[in-house]
Amino acid sequence: MSHYFDLFIMVMICLSVIDIILESEESLKVEYSSWFQFFEFFSVLVFSIEYALRVWTCVEHRKYNSSLFGRIKYMSNPMALVDLIAILPFYLPFVGIDLRFIRILRLFRIFRVLKMARYSSAFNLIKNVFKEKKEELLVTSVFIVIILIIISTLMYYLEREAQPDHFSSISKSLWWGIVTLTTVGYGDVYPVTALGKALGGIITLLSIGLIALPSGILASGYTEQIIMRKEKKKKN
Amino acid sequence: MSHYFDLFIMVMICLSVIDIILESEESLKVEYSSWFQFFEFFSVLVFSIEYALRVWTCVEHRKYNSSLFGRIKYMSNPMALVDLIAILPFYLPFVGIDLRFIRILRLFRIFRVLKMARYSSAFNLIKNVFKEKKEELLVTSVFIVIILIIISTLMYYLEREAQPDHFSSISKSLWWGIVTLTTVGYGDVYPVTALGKALGGIITLLSIGLIALPSGILASGYTEQIIMRKEKKKKN
Amino acid sequence: MSHYFDLFIMVMICLSVIDIILESEESLKVEYSSWFQFFEFFSVLVFSIEYALRVWTCVEHRKYNSSLFGRIKYMSNPMALVDLIAILPFYLPFVGIDLRFIRILRLFRIFRVLKMARYSSAFNLIKNVFKEKKEELLVTSVFIVIILIIISTLMYYLEREAQPDHFSSISKSLWWGIVTLTTVGYGDVYPVTALGKALGGIITLLSIGLIALPSGILASGYTEQIIMRKEKKKKN
Amino acid sequence: MSHYFDLFIMVMICLSVIDIILESEESLKVEYSSWFQFFEFFSVLVFSIEYALRVWTCVEHRKYNSSLFGRIKYMSNPMALVDLIAILPFYLPFVGIDLRFIRILRLFRIFRVLKMARYSSAFNLIKNVFKEKKEELLVTSVFIVIILIIISTLMYYLEREAQPDHFSSISKSLWWGIVTLTTVGYGDVYPVTALGKALGGIITLLSIGLIALPSGILASGYTEQIIMRKEKKKKN
Repeated sequence: MSHYFDLFIMVMICLSVIDIILESEESLKVEYSSWFQFFEFFSVLVFSIEYALRVWTCVEHRKYNSSLFGRIKYMSNPMALVDLIAILPFYLPFVGIDLRFIRILRLFRIFRVLKMARYSSAFNLIKNVFKEKKEELLVTSVFIVIILIIISTLMYYLEREAQPDHFSSISKSLWWGIVTLTTVGYGDVYPVTALGKALGGIITLLSIGLIALPSGILASGYTEQIIMRKEKKKKN
Repeated sequence: MSHYFDLFIMVMICLSVIDIILESEESLKVEYSSWFQFFEFFSVLVFSIEYALRVWTCVEHRKYNSSLFGRIKYMSNPMALVDLIAILPFYLPFVGIDLRFIRILRLFRIFRVLKMARYSSAFNLIKNVFKEKKEELLVTSVFIVIILIIISTLMYYLEREAQPDHFSSISKSLWWGIVTLTTVGYGDVYPVTALGKALGGIITLLSIGLIALPSGILASGYTEQIIMRKEKKKKN
Repeated sequence: MSHYFDLFIMVMICLSVIDIILESEESLKVEYSSWFQFFEFFSVLVFSIEYALRVWTCVEHRKYNSSLFGRIKYMSNPMALVDLIAILPFYLPFVGIDLRFIRILRLFRIFRVLKMARYSSAFNLIKNVFKEKKEELLVTSVFIVIILIIISTLMYYLEREAQPDHFSSISKSLWWGIVTLTTVGYGDVYPVTALGKALGGIITLLSIGLIALPSGILASGYTEQIIMRKEKKKKN
Repeated sequence: MSHYFDLFIMVMICLSVIDIILESEESLKVEYSSWFQFFEFFSVLVFSIEYALRVWTCVEHRKYNSSLFGRIKYMSNPMALVDLIAILPFYLPFVGIDLRFIRILRLFRIFRVLKMARYSSAFNLIKNVFKEKKEELLVTSVFIVIILIIISTLMYYLEREAQPDHFSSISKSLWWGIVTLTTVGYGDVYPVTALGKALGGIITLLSIGLIALPSGILASGYTEQIIMRKEKKKKN
């Protein structure tokens, strides 16, 4: 019974995401406006009932074992807050808040997708890898940001005279740095002076190793998790 | 004997792929049209005989051990269906079906290349890695898709006013998201507003780690396969 | 006590980096010029005091155990030199050196960020990976540079007639080579001739494996470090 | 003694590469033409003497233990042939062959760089990784090429009407495929139709895993080599 309910909610979450994506298409929005309104109404109804049920039954869980404070504690955990924010925009118009603001808030409905994580244990492996490697990822992130700032500042001084539009400030040069270091390379900004190209080229070549570090950390973290799971299985 | 037949079929498959690639070249198609027609005729003949022989002899295999149902069972496995679709377009014109439709169907002839997999055991390693890591790859794929949708929706709200052409809907914004997350970065769409660049830059930097996850999974899966093979060799 | 002082210096370093980034924004520089001047004065004061204190107290360390030569030895280590260069530009104008030159020298203030490394032990892991894999990284770097030069020279001969602007010399062709091998792909330079595209495409496909080598080296180096740390923990 | 000779040759090889790069710069070529001519003469002299000495002394090696056939055998090994081709263009003009052709042949002088491999043992690790993983790399390469052809053919049928310039034939579509799969993404060719973008996006996302395979193979191959070397050290 509970399993079918979870499945139904997951399907509803997916449908509401597709609803948001399709509604952003101007032509579809005009043509099927009544359909979108109906689905909006229906999905908010379902998610409201789900939210009410979850708040009602949470006291059965040992963690929220108090009729009032247990419920408040449950309601203030991040996932429950996302649930609330996902249905709130529908009720807010009656309160009289600016509509444009709500429209942007509705963006958070996308976060409903993340709720899927609650329904599936498959999510745990990735979560563990990131949890286990938290510190190492932070250190490399800081290192990458430092390199990013140094490279971008260098490039700012080398290119600002040749390209006053794209390298008018270090923050603009940082955009070049991020696009280059992540190897995205849109091609909207790139060095044009000989010195900029020379230094940019050498620095980029060297930095590729840096960007490879987080991948290496995640890969090794993944292998560790797999080995740990296998060892646990052997013991059981 | 069987070995030479397999080799001959593999060469024919490669030749027919080259034939499709060359035939798409307008100038070559006009100049050597008779050659293309001859090869088309010859290759269909070879593949028809091969298909007939395979259907005829499949009953010798224990799996298809019935003169009628065994053959039907063989014919309905995916690879045999690809074989059939590869030769069918040649016989279909006589039935009177729209020619343009067939032309696009002929595209499936490319799948003949995949048949090579049947002739070579080298294919197995990759297949095993993907098979073994099926679930993990699925989870990370779902996670990447979720992040992709969230990023693209964010970018849609930030850029749609500045670039109504490129960010007119979330589905268009998804194109930006895919091109950026895979670090392809064509440069046809990119954020132009300061807020779009700031958030885009930060999100992109963070997401690089996500894209690294499947690589890490495949790499660790590959290492696992290599270790398993070595252990098997030791035991024998 | 010492801990709070280190934290204060780290915050000051971060603030001075943000100061440089914001000051490069023309509009901000004009509007808040007095604030920038004040912060410049304050930060140089703090870093001057810090530098003086460090030079004064360094003799307590066994390594610099002589009142004069110990201090000179300390002052000539790279990190201390960076500290000196970071504060020197402020005092130099009184000596009468060209201001523009100093402005570019101020760029080195960014290196203050690297000093953070001294305050945090988290930096060590990355340092060890690069230290341990120094030789392997050098060999692959040399190999990548060789491949880069060969590819770029080939492309120069294939494209210089079709694109005299972008491939007028091998050094210009090297820019294409770096942008392609690192998979950045800005799109400012790319082969246009059929032969250039054919060879460029094949070579690029083959070279992807080369670029993957340093990532592999760093990843395996990282795994090694993690294993070594765990083994050390077990022994203790 | 022999060590200094090897070092001298290595420096000469590097200098001759720099010479080629600088000579391609039109302005430099005109201004310092006499210098380039002198260095050309000097380097060919050195490499001619080196080649003569190597051919002369090769008989001392057991492998080439015959005064005539041993030398012919040595001269026909790939590296010795590269040596010969590197100096031949200088002597050929006197024979009266087309100069432009020689100019392009001179490109092979770049291969002198590869000779460095002979002087350094550091090259061996990479060579072993590629040697050990030869078969796996071949299989994944074939798989990538198959996927590449299928994707490019699909894109050709989807985009040829919307972009007759960029997708006029499958071979042109292959250029898009290579640039996308390697995540270079110059931005000269990309799908513009909704269907092309949808399928292109999905396929690209899926293919990223494929491109990650060779990296994974090389990374695991590298780790294997490191482990093997350590085990050998332990035994000794």
